[in-house]
Amino acid sequence: MTSLHAVPTAADITVSHALIAPLIHRTPVLTCRAINAMTGADLYFKCENFQKIGAFKMRGAANAALRLSPAERARGLATHSSGNHAQAVARAAQELGVPAYIVMPENAPQVKVAGTRSYGAEVIFCASTPEARTAKLAEVVAATGAYFIHPFDDYNVIAGQATAAKELLEDAGSELDILMAPVGGGGLLSGTALTAHYFAPQALVIASEPHAVDDAYRSFHSGKIEHNASTDTIADGLRTPLSQKTFDLIRQHVDEIIRVEETEIIHAMRQVWERMKIIIEPSCAVPLAAVFAQPDTFRGKRVGIILTGGNVDISQLPF
Amino acid sequence: MTSLHAVPTAADITVSHALIAPLIHRTPVLTCRAINAMTGADLYFKCENFQKIGAFKMRGAANAALRLSPAERARGLATHSSGNHAQAVARAAQELGVPAYIVMPENAPQVKVAGTRSYGAEVIFCASTPEARTAKLAEVVAATGAYFIHPFDDYNVIAGQATAAKELLEDAGSELDILMAPVGGGGLLSGTALTAHYFAPQALVIASEPHAVDDAYRSFHSGKIEHNASTDTIADGLRTPLSQKTFDLIRQHVDEIIRVEETEIIHAMRQVWERMKIIIEPSCAVPLAAVFAQPDTFRGKRVGIILTGGNVDISQLPF
Repeated sequence: MTSLHAVPTAADITVSHALIAPLIHRTPVLTCRAINAMTGADLYFKCENFQKIGAFKMRGAANAALRLSPAERARGLATHSSGNHAQAVARAAQELGVPAYIVMPENAPQVKVAGTRSYGAEVIFCASTPEARTAKLAEVVAATGAYFIHPFDDYNVIAGQATAAKELLEDAGSELDILMAPVGGGGLLSGTALTAHYFAPQALVIASEPHAVDDAYRSFHSGKIEHNASTDTIADGLRTPLSQKTFDLIRQHVDEIIRVEETEIIHAMRQVWERMKIIIEPSCAVPLAAVFAQPDTFRGKRVGIILTGGNVDISQLPF
Repeated sequence: MTSLHAVPTAADITVSHALIAPLIHRTPVLTCRAINAMTGADLYFKCENFQKIGAFKMRGAANAALRLSPAERARGLATHSSGNHAQAVARAAQELGVPAYIVMPENAPQVKVAGTRSYGAEVIFCASTPEARTAKLAEVVAATGAYFIHPFDDYNVIAGQATAAKELLEDAGSELDILMAPVGGGGLLSGTALTAHYFAPQALVIASEPHAVDDAYRSFHSGKIEHNASTDTIADGLRTPLSQKTFDLIRQHVDEIIRVEETEIIHAMRQVWERMKIIIEPSCAVPLAAVFAQPDTFRGKRVGIILTGGNVDISQLPF
């Protein structure tokens, strides 16, 4: 097995799926009669909130780690993140018995630091700026020889995230008309779009994004990578701009990006909590919010939605 | 099919299960590595929070309704409750196309009233005393000829609730050493104990109850039905005293009742929310709280736990 250095093929995604199977859960696909009745659509929810570390990020991190040579892998895995990707890299390293080095800003929430350490990772703090983060990571990589797993600008990560949509297609029980994912850095969305392109070419790929951080929407329409002036959204997983790799794939294989308001995100999140009795983080309510916001696009359609994660501070809820 | 007027036999439970299958979900049995690691036990959670109307009560109400003759059933179903049982009776009546009459105290939360009405039931208000409730129900039954489905003092209801443990035994994948349920009025617990008696005689049946409303614990040890001086517990489904039928079955077939404190209930509830990413109501955290409180009883054992429901007001959480 070797690392991927070009856009993943259908075979690359299939092989990645087999490769990571021992390190991930095959999460369930759930349906909800009440939410179907509200939307007039047949919705199939892929529950990555039940994934290891509580988010789909485990897939990409596992794929990147498993595709290293034994010698490379033994030097360890590194990344900078204070979110789900940090825990995914830490957990992948733990499962493979190699060290993990996670660079985090010194003001990272204590619960994220403790969560990452609980998987045996070494946390290295840096000042809270993008420059300090990049510099500290380079320092760590130079000192340890660890492999840097980027949260999304890496074809191994993209191929790993693509496996969530592949399972959703396999388990939904019938052909889907639409596949949906939220978009932050674009790793999940570009993987989902590739999976649709190869395995469900009949399906539209519709992304969704908070209006407050609509860089992907603007990039999609302007043809160049745009940035956000503010990061003021409850969907904390979706504040990141695209990278070159994810931007190119999204331009090529995504059909539409729908923007939603903060109140719509909170409303959709609440419906999932109350009707489905499952815990999802705000970022993953964004596609359902789009279904509520543009009902005509989805009515009568079979729609697969990836629920990306369930890591939310339950003492700080927006309800 | 006819109504049950004696302690359900093994065959009665098996037949009840087949009878109600079209009206209920076969809910999943989930496991959680993190909680297993904390407790040293192998825990199998039967997720009745995913049941129709969000609680196991659907099983008993469906069984009682389906065992009526067509003529009896056509006159409708009645009960007094402002909780999950009210919604279960309403939903069973809706599925069967017959009227439902639900007596509720005039101070019942608006959300419970609306929830019950959303299944097409007629809500009849009464003063907020046990006497007023009983009188109003008698009036409704006399006027309509509807069948009164008691929340637990009814062998049809007990046989219905017994099917949750039956599915848990079938789906846990290996023989269980212990079966656990919380105890309020005792319908679920006595059904669970009957199922263990018939289908898993090797298993201990261990109930759990909030210390603040420990009437079942005291009844179990004194040999007569005891009552609670206060109802001051977060586990709002467990405030009810036992009835003669449930008391007799519990005395005969339950091995132990463990009492837990309010802080232990909230802690256990939080673990399930945070680790398993599923929403459970406080009452159903009570057995897991007992596992945390008495680890020596459960360590190294395969333990089936019925998670009874997920109907909680998410804007009023104890976290």
